[in-house]
Amino acid sequence: MAEFDATPVKAALVEAGQEVEAFLGQALKGRHIPCELLTAMEYSLMAGGKRLRPVLCLTTSALFGLDQHDVMPFASALEFIHTYSLIHDDLPAMDDDDLRRGKPSNHKKFGEARAILAGDGLLTEAFTLMASVAGTIPAERIAPAIGEVAVAAGAAGMVGGQDLDMAYTGRDNVSLEDLRYMHSLKTGALITVSCVSGALLAGASPEEVERIRAYGKAIGAAFQIVDDILDEIGDEATLGKPVGSDQEQGKVTYPSLLGLDTSRELASKEVDTALEQLAPFSGPHADFLRGLAQYIIHRAW
Amino acid sequence: MAEFDATPVKAALVEAGQEVEAFLGQALKGRHIPCELLTAMEYSLMAGGKRLRPVLCLTTSALFGLDQHDVMPFASALEFIHTYSLIHDDLPAMDDDDLRRGKPSNHKKFGEARAILAGDGLLTEAFTLMASVAGTIPAERIAPAIGEVAVAAGAAGMVGGQDLDMAYTGRDNVSLEDLRYMHSLKTGALITVSCVSGALLAGASPEEVERIRAYGKAIGAAFQIVDDILDEIGDEATLGKPVGSDQEQGKVTYPSLLGLDTSRELASKEVDTALEQLAPFSGPHADFLRGLAQYIIHRAW
Repeated sequence: MAEFDATPVKAALVEAGQEVEAFLGQALKGRHIPCELLTAMEYSLMAGGKRLRPVLCLTTSALFGLDQHDVMPFASALEFIHTYSLIHDDLPAMDDDDLRRGKPSNHKKFGEARAILAGDGLLTEAFTLMASVAGTIPAERIAPAIGEVAVAAGAAGMVGGQDLDMAYTGRDNVSLEDLRYMHSLKTGALITVSCVSGALLAGASPEEVERIRAYGKAIGAAFQIVDDILDEIGDEATLGKPVGSDQEQGKVTYPSLLGLDTSRELASKEVDTALEQLAPFSGPHADFLRGLAQYIIHRAW
Repeated sequence: MAEFDATPVKAALVEAGQEVEAFLGQALKGRHIPCELLTAMEYSLMAGGKRLRPVLCLTTSALFGLDQHDVMPFASALEFIHTYSLIHDDLPAMDDDDLRRGKPSNHKKFGEARAILAGDGLLTEAFTLMASVAGTIPAERIAPAIGEVAVAAGAAGMVGGQDLDMAYTGRDNVSLEDLRYMHSLKTGALITVSCVSGALLAGASPEEVERIRAYGKAIGAAFQIVDDILDEIGDEATLGKPVGSDQEQGKVTYPSLLGLDTSRELASKEVDTALEQLAPFSGPHADFLRGLAQYIIHRAW
């Protein structure tokens, strides 16, 4: 990893993230949402973060020639879904986390009932945003893209992964295979579909979509391994939550199963796979996707 | 109301509901959903009910010439959304209801964490189902229909209505206008969009869609007034929950604001409005919609 200079990709990610941020900041304005509920939704939506999922969608759609302005509502919907999942995961009945990104979690701030509804609202509004690209993007591409996102976010994807995570917590017989499968649903599916949906909306060929899917799966896996490593070695300021919280909650992690060095090797292999899948593609968007793959694991070194 | 014979419309509703039931029973088969989560989702999905929302969608789409088989996945998605809303509304942090349709509510049976996830899963799978009609229904109609459903189900619709309901509970200064607005979001929006989405998918003209929307709004309003009346006068077996539970929870209702007689008059006026909107339409599907409007309030007499 010594040879990777993270500075340019980090700058490009910040820049792309700021455009997403600007869209998110006005996405719910003018809608007739009860004021207190809107406040709770925007509290979590605007709590920062790198906006990785929208940036991935924007970048893969640009790779296949789509105007980023046209894709922005759909791309931003992925951040709505990510945010809702964080709010529900933090609930007392789930991970019972009081802090998120260094601030009180949604239910600590607004109470449990409103936090559940803020999550429900963000999830549903995501589909309003996705459907809103009708008119700017060819109609026959939209429903398949929405369908892929719904599968990835749903009970056979992210929601299913959270269910498995809860079931595995406190158990001492979780295998590496179990862990990988759980994370492929819980975090991998949404990261993967962020890449895939951009390609679908841009009219990429089935072969191209499958390469982008494999790229997304690989960086999704790398992302989670790095997250587990950071939970063990990171500092609280970067994480926005206490270091070692996984262990405290009785969660199995990659480092707890494999140790830090083997976990890093595994993440590195996933990034190699991601880069191989991008081999046929050139230009600034492909280079950015390559840089993002390397940047994801860079934090864990 | 004396002259209305509910028998034929009730029989037609039961028959249509059984077709929905058959679809719902196999809708999640073969999907890679973790088994315990799937069990919790199907527990509530298959707990009975008249399947009114899918039947409305199927009937308005048939009114404008669409094959019911083609619309079934989309129509059934409305029952997924309705079911998720019941699971989340019953949670301890919300209405804290132990019973639903005479059986333990989802969280009483499966625990709070899994009930939250079962709701999240059903909501998200609804959009998988809606997107799945691509290929059988013209592409340009699908995203607008999905968008309408998402708005109706979301923070400016059903979720917002539940938030207002929570905020109003225990307050003694809720006006009739407040109550109507809250219910127009909480129950009205999904009933309305059940009608509207069927018309949109069938390619109805904007004028036709607006008539169907006005019909849906009127029966949605009538439906809620009747629900409030039944909570006061109904028997526990029909309701599947204790009579008088609204009052016990400190909820304002139509009878508590207006008395029973005026509440019935109000419901009756809504049904008149619904019937007026259907005046230009003829044939068995229009007749069924007329019958449904009358059937809804028939229960409260």
